[in-house]
Amino acid sequence: MVAIRVGLLGYGGLGQAAGRLLAHKRELQLVAVADSKGYAHSGDGLDAVALEQAMRIHGSVGYLGTAGVLTSDPIEALLAQNVAVDGYFLALPNLPNTFMASVAQSFIASGWRGVLVDAIKRTSAVEQLLSLEDAFKRSGITYITGCGATPGLLTAAAALAAQSFVEVLSVRITFGVGIANWEAYRSTVREDIAHLEGYSTEQARSMSDAEVAALLESTGGLLKLENMEHADDILLERAGICARERVQVGGVVDTRNPQKPLSTNVQLTGRTFEGKISTHSFVLGDETSMAANVCGPAFGYLKTGVELHRRGHYGIWSSADLMPRFAH
Amino acid sequence: MVAIRVGLLGYGGLGQAAGRLLAHKRELQLVAVADSKGYAHSGDGLDAVALEQAMRIHGSVGYLGTAGVLTSDPIEALLAQNVAVDGYFLALPNLPNTFMASVAQSFIASGWRGVLVDAIKRTSAVEQLLSLEDAFKRSGITYITGCGATPGLLTAAAALAAQSFVEVLSVRITFGVGIANWEAYRSTVREDIAHLEGYSTEQARSMSDAEVAALLESTGGLLKLENMEHADDILLERAGICARERVQVGGVVDTRNPQKPLSTNVQLTGRTFEGKISTHSFVLGDETSMAANVCGPAFGYLKTGVELHRRGHYGIWSSADLMPRFAH
Repeated sequence: MVAIRVGLLGYGGLGQAAGRLLAHKRELQLVAVADSKGYAHSGDGLDAVALEQAMRIHGSVGYLGTAGVLTSDPIEALLAQNVAVDGYFLALPNLPNTFMASVAQSFIASGWRGVLVDAIKRTSAVEQLLSLEDAFKRSGITYITGCGATPGLLTAAAALAAQSFVEVLSVRITFGVGIANWEAYRSTVREDIAHLEGYSTEQARSMSDAEVAALLESTGGLLKLENMEHADDILLERAGICARERVQVGGVVDTRNPQKPLSTNVQLTGRTFEGKISTHSFVLGDETSMAANVCGPAFGYLKTGVELHRRGHYGIWSSADLMPRFAH
Repeated sequence: MVAIRVGLLGYGGLGQAAGRLLAHKRELQLVAVADSKGYAHSGDGLDAVALEQAMRIHGSVGYLGTAGVLTSDPIEALLAQNVAVDGYFLALPNLPNTFMASVAQSFIASGWRGVLVDAIKRTSAVEQLLSLEDAFKRSGITYITGCGATPGLLTAAAALAAQSFVEVLSVRITFGVGIANWEAYRSTVREDIAHLEGYSTEQARSMSDAEVAALLESTGGLLKLENMEHADDILLERAGICARERVQVGGVVDTRNPQKPLSTNVQLTGRTFEGKISTHSFVLGDETSMAANVCGPAFGYLKTGVELHRRGHYGIWSSADLMPRFAH
């Protein structure tokens, strides 16, 4: 079996979890990484432990021994190396909100052909990516968007649950996230803060650590999020499941406790052909971390993407359209 | 939008429910039906109400006005008509256990090209179909097996739930079925009886209605099934989720009560990359009938199959490999 060669863009909390996860997957080999200050690549595979050490001690994967390179433009510089990578997981914080689409355009411009998956959250960010559909097709890129936990695992579960019904009346996604120490997920927490009333993505992004800490102090460490702008809505609408107004996303993030404040779940209510109203539900086990529920699906979709790409299918899909492959 | 032209083989309880469901689906048009005594077809679409009337009064769709034909060999005779059908749902009882594979071979022999989906249950029956993979490829047939509730909806939910884990430790599928009157599902009930200790498929099939009634009288109308031979195991193994021994299927059928004796669910337990053991669960709403949970997914997979077929992908897939499309 020839392993799928994987690249990771972003090596913060999510990227590092993805790196550790890949160490368990014999079918997937990590060969390229970039963060905001540098990149590293090796056709023989990169070691997640050594990468984390470079991050912890020096703050960038660019400090990784002989494989690391420091540069002011890491993604463009890495792409210029023409590293043989089958698929990248874009484990980047999407701040500003146009960042993921601009990264996708860098891939298009580079001439690289392969699979891209993201774990993006906002509807407006997904809309930007969808507008690149023709460019992905022309460039030989198979892009799968919304491949994390939500959008991602829960969106796919909703698409599946819909099958018992002739009309979908509502989809309610509620997530519980518990993290022991928010400073391990600085970008993710700022993305969550940006969903709070009175905060824009730019405001949340520009907050200092002290300002984030002060905000969390005032809420007892909890972030309660309702009626979030979450791309589950546009992805389920695009897959024909229901109008986006019928999809609601909310949740609670506890930044001081690894225990989840509630079980992450999706509830889909619909009407059957016999006229009955009923609700299917998909509930995630509390012992699975955000990292497991985001990175696992992302690599499952990356494998599906590689299958599509090998068959010559280019363009853009989402977690609501495809079944992820189990990656060993 | 051009509707997908659908055929139904079998017009017992399941087939009739499928016919009624299709009346709600603008994207799918019923154009051909066959049962054990006859067939009917019309390029302008068949009316589910008229078909049920023909069944109720005369016992075969072959009695349907000018569109119906009575014959001793309905499937072969229908195929010989070269009716333009994009995909068939094989809503047939799989008795004997080789029946579905023999029907598939009739399609292969006929030269017809298109999509076939089944709602088959037994591992051994799926093995027979898998052995036809090369023949499907050569014949331009896109076959998707195990597309009902289980295997089907719950198998796909298990494949999805697996994504959070690096190893899947167990999959437990437990179904509750409530039917007001078992005589509306004579074949399905006999297939269930065949899973009881001391009954072979042949014995169950040859039981008279009086014998079935006597058995049900002795159990208070309940059929309790454990460690069933159910194809969820082979389909999840084939999709790389886990060894088939880790998959268990059981359930309770109440033949005297439309209320389900328990909520149908699948629980998947796995180990995350962080070493945590956890369980995801997918639970079906009690108000969805067996018919809704079987026929809805079957047509969702039929739509996915049409997409694959149009792209030139022939062979055999299962509910664990593909995301069903929502059919409007």
